[in-house]
Parts: sequence; C-alpha cells; structure tokens
Amino acid sequence: MSGNLYVVAAPSGAGKTTLVRMLLEREPAVHLSISFTTRAPRPGEQNGREYHFVAVDAFRGMISRDEFLEWAEVHGNFYGTSKKWISDQLAEGHDVLLEIDWQGAQQVRKLFPEAIGVFILPPSMDELTRRLTGRGTDAPDVIERRLAAAEAEMRHVGEFDYVIINDQLDQALDDLRAIVRCSRLNFGKQRGQHPALFAKLL
Amino acid sequence: MSGNLYVVAAPSGAGKTTLVRMLLEREPAVHLSISFTTRAPRPGEQNGREYHFVAVDAFRGMISRDEFLEWAEVHGNFYGTSKKWISDQLAEGHDVLLEIDWQGAQQVRKLFPEAIGVFILPPSMDELTRRLTGRGTDAPDVIERRLAAAEAEMRHVGEFDYVIINDQLDQALDDLRAIVRCSRLNFGKQRGQHPALFAKLL
Repeated sequence: MSGNLYVVAAPSGAGKTTLVRMLLEREPAVHLSISFTTRAPRPGEQNGREYHFVAVDAFRGMISRDEFLEWAEVHGNFYGTSKKWISDQLAEGHDVLLEIDWQGAQQVRKLFPEAIGVFILPPSMDELTRRLTGRGTDAPDVIERRLAAAEAEMRHVGEFDYVIINDQLDQALDDLRAIVRCSRLNFGKQRGQHPALFAKLL
Repeated sequence: MSGNLYVVAAPSGAGKTTLVRMLLEREPAVHLSISFTTRAPRPGEQNGREYHFVAVDAFRGMISRDEFLEWAEVHGNFYGTSKKWISDQLAEGHDVLLEIDWQGAQQVRKLFPEAIGVFILPPSMDELTRRLTGRGTDAPDVIERRLAAAEAEMRHVGEFDYVIINDQLDQALDDLRAIVRCSRLNFGKQRGQHPALFAKLL
C-alpha cells in the first residue's frame, strides 16, 4: 500500500496557498511535505510539524549523500526536501503534497514518476494582472517583474496532469478535492487498499 | 472542445444501475448512451430519449456499413450502439456514459482509446454471494450460474482505469462524481474549455 504524491504549482496570484491550506483542513490524510531546515525554531514551532530542525553539519551531510530532492540557502539558512522522508510517508500510505515551482516539479517527476501534477491558473490574464498590481503602491518595474515571473511559470502548465482554474474559490477547492479522491480510485491504488478482495479476483 | 466517454462495467449485484442513475440525476452534463433499436416504442417512450427507434431495414443498413460499436439481437429485436452518435455527442462537448460488460468495453477502447473505464465492485465476495443468492427462492444451479458470471466479469477489473467499491452507496456515488469532475480537469480538456486563456500561455 502506498500513498499519492501531489505536486502543486502556480504563478503567484493564482491562490495556491489558500487552496492548499483549505484542502489540508478538509483532507487530513493529505500531508504537506515538511522541509528540513537549519534555522532555529520560532516560538510555537514543533520539530517534525512545521519543519525538521537540524544542525548545519547534519544538513551538509544530507547534501553530500544526495538525500535532497531540492535544497536552497535563503538568508544564511538551509532549506531542503528529503527524498527519504517523502518515500517513507508514501510507503506508510500517506498522501504527500508538495508546493513547488515548475523546476522543482520537473525534479520530483524524475524521482517519482507517479507524482500527480496539479497546476493552478487564474481565470484570465487580466485578472492576474489586477491581482499582481496590488493596491497601486508598488513601483512599475516591480509589478513588471512580478508579471513576467508569473508568465514564465505559467508557460509550463502543459507539464502538469491537471489544471485548476481558480475563478470561484469553493469551486477550485472542489476541483482539487476531486483530483485527490479520484487519484485514490485508480486500479493500482484500490488493489493496494483492498488486497483480500482483489486476491480473489485476479 | 470534446466531452469524455465513460465506460462503466460491473458484475450483477454491484449496484451499477442504481449508481449510474444517481450520477445522471446529479450530473446533467453526462448523457447516457442511447441505443438504436428495431423494437416498437412502448407507451411514454420518446424517439431519441429512451432509444433511437428505427426500422429493421435501416438497422441492417447500419450493420452493413459497420456503423455499430456493438449490436445484438434479443428476442427478435435488434439493439445497437452507434459509433457516429457517440462521436457526435463527444464533439458537441457532451460527456457520454456507456453501461457495458468487459467485452463491450474492450471494443469501445479500440475505437475510443481515450475512454475512461470505471469498474464497480461489491465490498466482498461474501456480500456479492449474499446479494446474488436473493431471497432463497431461486434454484441452486441458477444461483451458481449467476455467481460464475459475476466472477468471470470481475476478472477483467484490471482493464479499467478506476475501481469503485460499492460498500456505502453515497460514498460510491461521491467516488463516481469525483472521477467525472477530475476527468474534466486534465490539461487537454481544460485547454479545450478555455482556449483564450491557454492561447496566451502556450
């Protein structure tokens, strides 16, 4: 028995973070991927919940043993997604969701070809522009860069299995939940979930 | 833009007919395939709704032009599924659902490789036996034959994309609806539905 791995990407302004948060609230069997980090825990953060907190040496050791799906250094701290943690979660039957960009998604697909790719789009380019323009307080070149980054991300939509167009949030959430439910129903997953029944049939 | 073709199979006793009827009530965009027949309409039946009613000569003409996906003669009347009718429905953007057995499903897959196969299973073999044994009024050899036919059908479950285990009817219906919703979200379908948005991205 093994869980599904979901890889969710979107340009900023598509509403990915909100959608994923709502999904996780309603589908407790889907676990958000928990990254490893070398930064110190903040008050209230718990090891293994927000992050796996590790020492710099330990993190460097993981890099040298090629244990990360992806890693990055941000403001002097390391962050990374462990291949083994994902494999273990899946082997235990948990679904895992990774919020990632198109480049990360390509890396994940190489290691986990069964990963289910979901791309979230805004309803239109005009609406995206409106969302990314914000309250008109940002400099034009900042807005330009934001839009260019969003368009660059969106050009990879064709690399994903499913596309959700986030016009109405509740509809987009129903779409995402349908993908999760449906992905558990394919022949291989069902056989894994119901071994006794399938053993009698095949 | 084109619709999805669903091919739904099950052994008797799995609850297929009930599930499909409930799906059609809740998803009006999914159309049940309408067969052609040479039998006379019964009171209340309407041409193009329950069946396409045609004369024997017209039906034989369709057979000779290889226009049927499958056809059969039952009690002196012909029944058949028209390839063209299905193609037309899909081209108009309608989803079409075919209730069919594993042999019919194989034929459909040859012509419509994009067809989405759904197989409905009972929760256990014991439960199926109980359902097929009925109220104990049938002869043992009749029950034996019924069970053998159900098992023969179920051995083909692996040829279908999705498997629904009909333990709780409302859950099984939610499964079927998730498959329908999810199948509309794949990249190709979404591009067909939102040509203006995708034209700007690709």
